[in-house]
This record gives sequence, structure tokens and C-alpha cells, in this order.
Amino acid sequence: MSLLLKHIGTIVGIEHMGRLRRSGAEMDLLDRLDNAYLATDEGRITAFGPMSEMPDEAHFDTVVDAEGGTLFPSFCDSHTHLVYAGSREQEFLDKIHGLSYEEIARRGGGILNSADRLHACSEEELYQQALERVDEVIRMGTGLLEIKSGYGLSTADELKMLRVIRRLRETTPVEIRATFLGAHAVARDYIGRQSDYVHLVCEEMLPAVAREGLADFVDVFCDQGFFTIEETRRIMRRGAELGLRAKIHANELAISGGVQLGVEEHALSVDHLERMGEAEIEALQASETMPTMLPGAAFFLGMSYPPARAMIEAGLAVALASDYNPGSSPSGNMRMVMALAATQMRMTPTEALHAATLNGAAAMGLSHDFGSITVGKVANFFLTRPLSSPEFFTYAYSTPLIRRVFLRGCEYR
Amino acid sequence: MSLLLKHIGTIVGIEHMGRLRRSGAEMDLLDRLDNAYLATDEGRITAFGPMSEMPDEAHFDTVVDAEGGTLFPSFCDSHTHLVYAGSREQEFLDKIHGLSYEEIARRGGGILNSADRLHACSEEELYQQALERVDEVIRMGTGLLEIKSGYGLSTADELKMLRVIRRLRETTPVEIRATFLGAHAVARDYIGRQSDYVHLVCEEMLPAVAREGLADFVDVFCDQGFFTIEETRRIMRRGAELGLRAKIHANELAISGGVQLGVEEHALSVDHLERMGEAEIEALQASETMPTMLPGAAFFLGMSYPPARAMIEAGLAVALASDYNPGSSPSGNMRMVMALAATQMRMTPTEALHAATLNGAAAMGLSHDFGSITVGKVANFFLTRPLSSPEFFTYAYSTPLIRRVFLRGCEYR
Repeated sequence: MSLLLKHIGTIVGIEHMGRLRRSGAEMDLLDRLDNAYLATDEGRITAFGPMSEMPDEAHFDTVVDAEGGTLFPSFCDSHTHLVYAGSREQEFLDKIHGLSYEEIARRGGGILNSADRLHACSEEELYQQALERVDEVIRMGTGLLEIKSGYGLSTADELKMLRVIRRLRETTPVEIRATFLGAHAVARDYIGRQSDYVHLVCEEMLPAVAREGLADFVDVFCDQGFFTIEETRRIMRRGAELGLRAKIHANELAISGGVQLGVEEHALSVDHLERMGEAEIEALQASETMPTMLPGAAFFLGMSYPPARAMIEAGLAVALASDYNPGSSPSGNMRMVMALAATQMRMTPTEALHAATLNGAAAMGLSHDFGSITVGKVANFFLTRPLSSPEFFTYAYSTPLIRRVFLRGCEYR
Repeated sequence: MSLLLKHIGTIVGIEHMGRLRRSGAEMDLLDRLDNAYLATDEGRITAFGPMSEMPDEAHFDTVVDAEGGTLFPSFCDSHTHLVYAGSREQEFLDKIHGLSYEEIARRGGGILNSADRLHACSEEELYQQALERVDEVIRMGTGLLEIKSGYGLSTADELKMLRVIRRLRETTPVEIRATFLGAHAVARDYIGRQSDYVHLVCEEMLPAVAREGLADFVDVFCDQGFFTIEETRRIMRRGAELGLRAKIHANELAISGGVQLGVEEHALSVDHLERMGEAEIEALQASETMPTMLPGAAFFLGMSYPPARAMIEAGLAVALASDYNPGSSPSGNMRMVMALAATQMRMTPTEALHAATLNGAAAMGLSHDFGSITVGKVANFFLTRPLSSPEFFTYAYSTPLIRRVFLRGCEYR
């Protein structure tokens, strides 16, 4: 199947230099081409260039007139929890009404209660609910998507979640990677026995997950009140033995040492980063671990945002992800994440675009294949209506602008 | 034309008691009906009730199956500037890059530069651009819409804007009200001669606007660095002589006395309110002037939000509006405004709904006809897909949930 797009107003997110991430000042350089065509074959980008050099339309199975719209590389959302049972708007109400975390937990909020609901939900129903969310984020422009387990908290339920993720991977055209997050919280049955739970994660859950080939990555909620540095290191190392690279939740609630641990243990990414000091930024400067920010959670919870400008000005590459989950970020809209980055964290729309595409792919170790308009990469991109500038896409953040979505060179309808 | 909607999962925003606004604790009471029908005739709501009492379908011209979705009254957006020429994303970039207000103005930002662009834009082109935005907000659920002039700043260009608003009113099914905002800024030719400009507004613009019947309301940007209390009072009184009630921009930049002035002069609303003290709240307690908050502007500019909780807890009615404009709020999405109110200002989704519907209509003096599901009111409402609760609509703020929009009992397509 070959595809030709003609009369593209502007292609943005081009990467000619083979960069696998954009760092520091490079994040704000927009490589664009106006009045262009783009060709794909067998799901890969085969060529793009000015309209004056467009190949003969007769050579293509499908020809699409982009009608002057802008072509963006698909978003690469490297941090979501979008497999879950039911929604948690009651907890949102309780928070507005000023209830404490403990009161909310008693009334049915929090990770443990998502675990109870997931336990009671059939695998089929869990799949159907998640499928609706995957369809939603595809239509919003996401082409590469990480999904975590972590609402199971027992071996059986963690495997159930991971099987749902595998089924989504097999049945939808978006590229999906699965992360095992057994250490999201201590399961209800293990409260007061955290080290026994960590043992269960390392010696029963992780081997079972690896045996069935259900996960690509291992994650730990490494923060004050959740898992310690030592527990996190143990889980990361056990994951590494079993072939799973780590992506960890770090520095959301406290300056916990999680960032430094991530760097030491060669984590692919350290995610959240609302609490960062100079030592954290210095640790990242010497590493390939991708700092990943989730402004949708800070927005929804009304918390402070990560220090994006300080990180970029220190020369770091940064990624943006949605954190789509029922408790702290009930949105998978990566364009909204870009708008939050621009309005709340003073990232430019161009920096936000690279953070949400190429650097997001890098946070999954997949930027050789995804995250930019580059010959040879997977043909995942979307077309907007004609825009006054590429920045209009972030500026007019709630105007529906995305017209057509293409995954592996096929239009998604 | 009569219409019957059947199998509505839930009707929300019902007002049985004839209230023309909701104040204080009443704002958080949701009047809802599950498993319902709703009937309209000649553009008005004629009946609604439980499915068990539904009238015979054969009596209706059109029957629509709501398929279990939730029916909301249309949003009443009482503060927009959506007639403008071009967008201002360059200014947004300049702000992110840390440029000062003066530097941005030199590079082409600010109200005066919107005025230059509007001056250069043909009336037809201005209409076409605005029409696209009106279509956008209708699809997002708005059924009653205020639009201001104020990018003209000369008699001819203010009249041009108001003629465009009149044409939108005549050619679109959304209910529109027009506000004359000649005193949005001092026109370039009058810089240093502010009192001459105020004279022009009062003695040339306002009479011309009134003569042609082009406006319903008069507005003034009453704030530090813009128009003084005395100038604002003069313009409001001149408007009142000519039959125009006032709605004023107040307390965005400073505690300016604008709120008290609005109350004294019986303004329909005082809008913005980022800077409020106890005296301002007390003044509003003794009045019918509607305090109207525009959280989209605080969000986009990264400023502090109005003290919504303090106002509601003082027993006030409050309204929410979008402030859709190219400089400080490039979004007309009232559902996003509700989400901002809930996440950033701790309003409950129910309070936000009443603020965005009934109280918005009251801020235009139209809550006898708009803003709730009430027999006899104009049949403006929208249907969502089935929701787990009415609050899900605000919680899952970026999920596309609106399925069908009805204005005056006709579906908008």
C-alpha cells in the first residue's frame, strides 16, 4: 500500500540530521517545509519534498489532497495509565469539597480503589473501556503510546491488565508499548508489609510478566510515602535481569533521590519532576535518561509545574506525556499537554512539539522509528486544516484543527 | 416544527422554580431527571418528564432517540470578543520569550494592533473569519452569545464591527447580543488625549451606534492604565441615556473601584475580577450586578484566578464566560471554562454549570428565556453520549462527549 499526500501547506517536525532526541536550544528549532508532498510505502515514509518535485501520482495506490493543511508527526505519548475500570469523578468532587486524602480513600478514591474496581471488572469489559480511550487518543493525534499496569497489585490482576494492553496492541493501529508497574502502590493485603510486597513484585510478578512477554518496561512509583530508593533499585535491577528497561515515577511529591537513581540505573526516563533541584538537573546532564513532564496532572490537581525552562536552559532534552489516568489526569489529549507546557511552563510551541514527539519516542527507546518526519520512519502523522502558522496549533488550543489521521500510512477513520 | 427527544439518560440544568439566577449554596444544587423525554414546539420547550409519561410520537414532526445521553442546557457565553481580524500567536510567542508589554506592542501585539488589522480587513472578510468562530462555539455547546466591538476605535470601524455582529445574528441560529466597547483602549490617533477620545466615544460613537440600533449593551475597560472611574461613569451614563445597559471590564489589573462603580450604575455585569477585596464582595451582595469570571484569560496568560469560592460563600451568584479573543483567551470552549473553574478555582461542576448557563444568561438580562431546561424557554440544548454522571462532563474535560446540538428546537449540523 503506497500513499501520496499532495498540497501540504507545511510539514513540521522534520528531522533530517538523524537526531534521536532534541536537547537544549535545538528544541526550539523548527524544521519545516512549505508547499510540499509526502510519500509512503508499506507503512514507512519514503520521500517528501517541495510540490515542484512531486513524483507521478499514477505510481501510488492512494492520493490524498491535503488542501493546504499542516502535517505534524504523530504524538508519542510515553506515560499513560489508560487501562482502568470506571472513572473517578466522585474523588474529583470530594477534592473540590476539601476532603483530605484519607477521607477520599475511605469514600472510594485512590489507587487501591482503582485496584478494587479493576479486580471486579471482567477482562473483556476492561478491554472495551480501554479501547474507547485508545480510539479517542488516536483521533487526537497520538501514534505511539505507552500504557502501564499498576491497578492490579496482585499477580493475577497485573497479568490481566497486561493482557488487555497486549490485545490493544494487536487490535489497534497505534504503536503500543507496555510497562509493568506492580509497584504503583502497596496492595491492600500487604499494607504494613511493604517489603513482602516488593518481594512479591520481584520474585513472582516480574518473572511471570517476563515469562509471558507481556511488558517492555518496568516502572516504580519512587516517592515519599510510596517506594523507597532501595526498593526501587531492587525492582529496577530485577527487571533488568529479565530484560525490562526501567522508566520510573520520580520527584512528584518530594526531592526523593529518584532522579539520581534513575540516572545511575540507566532508566529510559524519569517521569513527573514537579520537585527538582540543581542536583537533579546536573545528574540528568550526564545521562541519557529522558526527563519527562506530565503537566496534565499538575493542571488537574492544581499543583506546581515542573521547571521546564531550567531544564532546557541547562541543555537537557525533555519529553512531555499525558499521564492519562482516572485520578490525576483524566485526559489523553497531547495537544492540550502542549498548550499547558506553553501557557504554564513557558515552553515554546516548537519546544513542546519536539517534547511531545521525538523526545517522547526517545523516552520509549523508539526514536529511530517514530517521532519525526524522516525518510524511513513509520508513516504516523496527522493533517490539520490550513493554519496561519504552526504555532497556531498550540495557541488556539481548543479549536478543532485535526482533520485526518494516518497510522502506518493508512487513514484512521 | 415540533421535536420529541426520547430516551434521554439524564436531563440536567432544570429550573422549575422560575429562578432567574442561582446564588450562593443554590449554585451547587443540581436539578436532574433520569430516563426522560423532552418536547419542543416552534423553538420553545413545551414539556419534559419521565419516559413513562412521554406523549405519542405521532404528534411530532421529528423524533430523536437520545440513546441514553445527557441533555444539558446550551451555554450562555456572556463575554466574548470573537469578531477580529487574524490571530495573535506571534504575541504569544513573544510573551513566552520574555518580551515586555512595550516590546510586544512594538512588534505588533496588543489591542491597538488588532485595531490596525481590523481597519485593513474588509467587512466581508471580517464576517467570514468570525462566522467560522461562531460555528466552532455552537458545536461546543454555546446557544446564547455576547460579542463586543472594541477593535475598531474609530466611529467607522466600530460600526463596521457592529454590522458584522448584526450579520452574524441574522445568519446563524445562535442567539447573539452585541456590546459596544469603543472604550477598549485609546485609539492610536488620540494617545495623550484620552479625554478627547472619551468625548468621541460619548458624543459621536455612542449616538451613531444607538441611531443604527447596532448594540444592546455598552462596555468600558475600567482599569489601571485604561479608563478611569470618572470616564467609565460618563460613558455608562451616556449609554444609559441612549438605552444601552452597561457591562464593564473591572478589577483585572488592579483593585480599581470598577466593581463598586458597576453596582452604583446598575451595570448588568462586572467582568474579570482577578483582583477582589472584601469591599468588592460586599458591594456585590447588595446588588443585581452579575460578577462574571473569565478563567480562560487567567489560564492563557498564567495569571491568578478570581476568588470564586469567596464570592459563592458570600452568597453571590457568579457567571463564567470565555472571553474568546486573540490576545488573552484564544478559546471559546465553555466546557474548558467549566473545567478551569473546577480545577483552578475549586468550583464544583454543578456550580460551574449554573455559572455557564443560567447565570450567564442573567448577565445578559435574558435568563427569563435562556439558560435552563424550563417549559416555555427557548429550546437550546445539547446531547452527550451516555455519561457515568453529569460531573463526568467536567472531569473528562478533553474527551469529545457532545454528540448533537439543538438551537430553537432544530438540530445544528
